[in-house]
Amino acid sequence: MLENKEYKRQGKEARKRWKEERRELERALEALQQPLKEAGIPVMLVFEGWSAAGKGAVIARTIARLDPRNYQVLTFGQATDEERRRPMLWPFWKGLPAKGQLAVLERSWFGRALERMEETPADTAQLVEEINTFERQLCDDGYLILKFFLHIGQDEQRRRLEKLAGDDDTAWRVTDRDWRQNRDYVRRKEKLDLLLQATNTPHAPWHVVWNEEKGSGAVSVLRIVKEAIADALDHGVAKPAPAEPQTWPLVSMPRLDQVDLSPGLSEDDYNEALKKEKKHLAKLHSRLYREKVPVVIGFEGWDAAGKGGAIRRLSWALDPRGFDVVPIAAPTKDELDRHYLWRFWRQLPKDGHIVLFDRTWYGRVMVERLEGLTPEARWSMAYDEINEFERSLVRWGAVVLKFWLHIDPDEQLRRFQDRENTPEKRYKITDEDWRNREKWPDYEVAVDEMLQKTSTEYAPWVIVEGNDKKYARLKVLRTVRKALEERLDR
Amino acid sequence: MLENKEYKRQGKEARKRWKEERRELERALEALQQPLKEAGIPVMLVFEGWSAAGKGAVIARTIARLDPRNYQVLTFGQATDEERRRPMLWPFWKGLPAKGQLAVLERSWFGRALERMEETPADTAQLVEEINTFERQLCDDGYLILKFFLHIGQDEQRRRLEKLAGDDDTAWRVTDRDWRQNRDYVRRKEKLDLLLQATNTPHAPWHVVWNEEKGSGAVSVLRIVKEAIADALDHGVAKPAPAEPQTWPLVSMPRLDQVDLSPGLSEDDYNEALKKEKKHLAKLHSRLYREKVPVVIGFEGWDAAGKGGAIRRLSWALDPRGFDVVPIAAPTKDELDRHYLWRFWRQLPKDGHIVLFDRTWYGRVMVERLEGLTPEARWSMAYDEINEFERSLVRWGAVVLKFWLHIDPDEQLRRFQDRENTPEKRYKITDEDWRNREKWPDYEVAVDEMLQKTSTEYAPWVIVEGNDKKYARLKVLRTVRKALEERLDR
Repeated sequence: MLENKEYKRQGKEARKRWKEERRELERALEALQQPLKEAGIPVMLVFEGWSAAGKGAVIARTIARLDPRNYQVLTFGQATDEERRRPMLWPFWKGLPAKGQLAVLERSWFGRALERMEETPADTAQLVEEINTFERQLCDDGYLILKFFLHIGQDEQRRRLEKLAGDDDTAWRVTDRDWRQNRDYVRRKEKLDLLLQATNTPHAPWHVVWNEEKGSGAVSVLRIVKEAIADALDHGVAKPAPAEPQTWPLVSMPRLDQVDLSPGLSEDDYNEALKKEKKHLAKLHSRLYREKVPVVIGFEGWDAAGKGGAIRRLSWALDPRGFDVVPIAAPTKDELDRHYLWRFWRQLPKDGHIVLFDRTWYGRVMVERLEGLTPEARWSMAYDEINEFERSLVRWGAVVLKFWLHIDPDEQLRRFQDRENTPEKRYKITDEDWRNREKWPDYEVAVDEMLQKTSTEYAPWVIVEGNDKKYARLKVLRTVRKALEERLDR
Repeated sequence: MLENKEYKRQGKEARKRWKEERRELERALEALQQPLKEAGIPVMLVFEGWSAAGKGAVIARTIARLDPRNYQVLTFGQATDEERRRPMLWPFWKGLPAKGQLAVLERSWFGRALERMEETPADTAQLVEEINTFERQLCDDGYLILKFFLHIGQDEQRRRLEKLAGDDDTAWRVTDRDWRQNRDYVRRKEKLDLLLQATNTPHAPWHVVWNEEKGSGAVSVLRIVKEAIADALDHGVAKPAPAEPQTWPLVSMPRLDQVDLSPGLSEDDYNEALKKEKKHLAKLHSRLYREKVPVVIGFEGWDAAGKGGAIRRLSWALDPRGFDVVPIAAPTKDELDRHYLWRFWRQLPKDGHIVLFDRTWYGRVMVERLEGLTPEARWSMAYDEINEFERSLVRWGAVVLKFWLHIDPDEQLRRFQDRENTPEKRYKITDEDWRNREKWPDYEVAVDEMLQKTSTEYAPWVIVEGNDKKYARLKVLRTVRKALEERLDR
């Protein structure tokens, strides 16, 4: 995609024309802000390019007439401590714009992927898949993504670096890395070209913009941004073509009505086994901290199935400095204004740490589906999206486990009644619990479908027979312990 | 505060008693969670202590029976990249618990201050003042702060380090630093003692807890936590004694009705001057980036006084990669559930970066005061709190400026009408703007008081005569330019 052409300067007349056109475009873009806000379309403008290609100046032009309340400029230079301890895409998920907002990215996942390719070339195919999945998921959700690569030739780059280096005010901006890049221009261009082509999709295409002449790049970028936004306002954001049906390494799961809920445990057996598991787990936690293994565990289940108790017993075995419990309630406005996976990506653990999600991203195919909060066209895509999300985590190195705490309707009724009859437990039971209970059969259909479609070898569901609390708690601890052992001895 | 006593082990019988008492206390604390939530009291439990004093185990005991949805454990080891580029207290403001929530801090501002004292001993008095101000501000807002220092003797510490180092599973936890600390125990104890005493206040006292014997520390901590929470539930959180009246280096400000709003500027003069200022500013921005100077600029003013336009013109002169505009709207639930300065602390720039706040923390003494959103007892403290906040920023090295964009009621009326009569501006004018306009005289009283009480030499207010937009915009740019020059040439 990076042509090797000899750029011919177009001269003063052209520069005057560009300036006029630029002014018009700036105003046109300014006028599109309010409609964009009303349409609630989130926009990501990605700027990549050679060092000294003029990213800063082009970005300044692009946002010149925008209301600063409508956009945010995010700069992604070298990864920070915090970023290095998370998946490659974490900072970009975190920085996702809200509906009607623009995020302007100076460097992006593209630059980060390039860095990784240089470290471990073998990962290229996976990196490309991660990026394309990320962009497709966002576009499916209505994000408008425009990607620009600012292009200049090797000679022009050298001239610019020399000019910068020659001025006291700007010399600090030129690094050894820049000079190396310039000497290595040809080889680097090949690599760039490869990655540009591999991530050039119809819904999130690359725009390679020559920026050898002052003012030419900005006007091209403005033209593309303005047209793309106007187009999205008129016809909606272009949806990606339906992805090829994916085949996941699924683990076969029983239907919920076939699960035997009779297993139980005596007090003595429970206490003894629990003590042993806790001791094991404490050791494993310390090892995974040292070996920097991240762990993500999700808890779902019927109301009153014992999620809280299981999470607590598990947390007693862990070093409180090394884990977090993230309770998931109804989404806030900030969360509703972004992709539904945003809030889970944001809460990922650092490597070596554990996060226990008390309810999870599976709300998408349970409550959101059954309460009509999300149209079928969107929630039905979530099975693949979630498998992709969990695949990202596992590729990053995480252990991913999901527990379904299962009880039968009679047991739930007993527990609801017990809560109502015990003053200090009464706050735990609400009208909503009773309403949800009436929808048990619908939920069972949804949960069965979810278990069938999202229990993968790399991130399996574990059904926990929950009628006996002791049995359930021990099973959770034991399953986690085994999964950690397996991962650490791999 | 760190006694030098010879700890006498109390033996098996005592350990059994402690265990029983601990269990009772754990349950009592568990039962206090729901009342705590209902009372909406935020709690901070701070754990400091010698290496190997058993912080992790004591924390684990303290939270053992708590619902993980009610607390968060925050670990503050060595400062991260992001933290190093912000004020010392930034991570702790960021991690502030919400009403009814507990934050459990493993190490804290105390540890960070100790590190700084070792680097630059001269700053000790300021560090102490920063810490005491921070804790007092939180307690004034209803936070319950409990601080624990886990204490062991030098010999016991050495024995524990040797034991840890001798076991393959734990050897990695013992660092050179720990050994150094043990050898230096006596000298270090003096320093610790000094800082403990200097930050031991009635509203946020230190509890020094001997933890030489297994189980003794946890039971002491649990006892204190349980009693303090029960007490706060019965009698409310103890308020700090009124602070000594503070004297601020105030800059004298004119009353608003004495401001001459006639200054104006011709189109030509404006364009020429603007061009020059922008060029200067661009250079200064690049210098402050290199010299790592943070800049915090607040914009306040009457509705339609031209805040947006001034912010935009200023932003055109800046590198978009080096500044952020933070619009401040009505607080979200998360914000209402915490100290009102929380959202401003969170949004502070990195060093070398600029943040422009579009409306600010001064909402406390304007809209919150006039709309009765905050009782007088609280908003009237805000003048000092804000002066303290800005002092923290300046001590950190920031340039702090506040602009009041001023117009008269006639000019506002013209602009409101213009907005109503221009279709593409109509969204900018709401019923609330008209309602606020009716309260002009009340606002003027509040603004005058604010300008008198919070314009300090280190963070002055600048009244911008706004009837002429060109004049106003240029004055903003010029003032910023001069302030940056002054700071950089210091």
